[in-house]
Amino acid sequence: MNFIDKLLNISRKNESLLCIGLDPNPDLIPKVSILEFNTAIIDATSDLVCAYKPNLAFYEALGIEGMTILQKTIEHIPDNIPIIGDAKRGDIGNTAKAYANALFSTFSFDAATVNPYMGFDSIEPFINYHDKGIFILCRTSNPSAIDFQNLHCPTGVPLYKMVAHKAKEWNIYNNIGLVAGATYPDELRELRSICPEMCLLIPGIGTQGGNLALTISYGVDTQEKNAIINVSRQILYASREIGFAQAARNTAERIRNQINSCLPSHLKAK
Amino acid sequence: MNFIDKLLNISRKNESLLCIGLDPNPDLIPKVSILEFNTAIIDATSDLVCAYKPNLAFYEALGIEGMTILQKTIEHIPDNIPIIGDAKRGDIGNTAKAYANALFSTFSFDAATVNPYMGFDSIEPFINYHDKGIFILCRTSNPSAIDFQNLHCPTGVPLYKMVAHKAKEWNIYNNIGLVAGATYPDELRELRSICPEMCLLIPGIGTQGGNLALTISYGVDTQEKNAIINVSRQILYASREIGFAQAARNTAERIRNQINSCLPSHLKAK
Repeated sequence: MNFIDKLLNISRKNESLLCIGLDPNPDLIPKVSILEFNTAIIDATSDLVCAYKPNLAFYEALGIEGMTILQKTIEHIPDNIPIIGDAKRGDIGNTAKAYANALFSTFSFDAATVNPYMGFDSIEPFINYHDKGIFILCRTSNPSAIDFQNLHCPTGVPLYKMVAHKAKEWNIYNNIGLVAGATYPDELRELRSICPEMCLLIPGIGTQGGNLALTISYGVDTQEKNAIINVSRQILYASREIGFAQAARNTAERIRNQINSCLPSHLKAK
Repeated sequence: MNFIDKLLNISRKNESLLCIGLDPNPDLIPKVSILEFNTAIIDATSDLVCAYKPNLAFYEALGIEGMTILQKTIEHIPDNIPIIGDAKRGDIGNTAKAYANALFSTFSFDAATVNPYMGFDSIEPFINYHDKGIFILCRTSNPSAIDFQNLHCPTGVPLYKMVAHKAKEWNIYNNIGLVAGATYPDELRELRSICPEMCLLIPGIGTQGGNLALTISYGVDTQEKNAIINVSRQILYASREIGFAQAARNTAERIRNQINSCLPSHLKAK
């Protein structure tokens, strides 16, 4: 089953657009091992999410042991929940092929994030995996995103919109999506109008402070709910006490329900 | 010792601007293990190079085993030769901090490549390691680099030059360099004029077809030879037979000497 079908299936079953970012920070987690932490979070939330998104940085920071934890975390996630490898990779064609192989074959992610700076041949090896999802960084959620992404290009549009237009042009296998931060709702709205049917991966709710109602209003498409709202720290670190998994569940459930309450009425029943 | 001093020391000792990219491709290497391959290449060339540059993609593609090979490869490289982690990472501040930690602390690289698309806060955690080298992707060597890097910004300069100007502004600790492909000599010349004293990491010679004489003429600074010319496949896969390490050495020596023969005369004696 391809990524989008897998996503929509579980999204309907769990009535959820919520993705949990599995970004374990040893300084913030309770007194358990990182693998125990991840598996407890997964066990406590797997009926509330549409996807999980481990960011590779947090595992690489722990070296070989961290990569082993990543692999075991992936294995622990139920088969019907898609896993997005948040890797933001981008390299020349020959190397991008090795990265796509790493993320999609070796680590078995269902989707991955990629960086567009190096252009089409850095992304092509990823989209050649037709059943996988490829999220191209477009308008990211961090404050410095403005440094380059909002520079105006000769056609009069900012760089991030040029990326969206190119992504649309490159989407011949219908497996490309965009990363669009919740912290910039106006830009999110513009991206949704450029790519009305594309899946948007939207970080920036939660610790980063994005407005949920605007995010849903601007980011969710009008037909299929092709949007993934990612929250990491606010859920993972809801508590550092012994009941951390239940606290994470409670926070995830509240956010899942808040997202649903913001959906336009004709989508709620779906 | 900081990265630049370490680089200049070995560059003078070995009379070399050549960096070898340690990018083992299981389909192309001779019939030995990847670790044996890497260590044989290192043993055969360590008196001919100014740096080694493993690209993480090729190790990640091999999973946990690959990351172990990467670690052992790093340990095998002589202490006086700087190692550049070619990772092209870029993420929000919190995550970029984890990536910098992974590359500089966990894997002990002396330098790393980073992607500028997400702006300053995605690069800041790297430059906060004052003794490390940070190479920002600027004008990359691949054909699709033109997709975004050559778009003209409001100030009338293409994006890659905006990146160079920003890199210069951000270079408060003198530890930033640029990645500038040998396949685009005119752009390389322009980058050298914007950043006359910055270290340039120049891929694109060899299999990618960049012109060596133009690369040296345009890319090497006029004082300190602050340039690193990277070659990967042409050296690594010089032969697939039992004498592959000697063949790699012969190719590396030839390229090292070609580079030196192209240097302006006042730099040759240094």
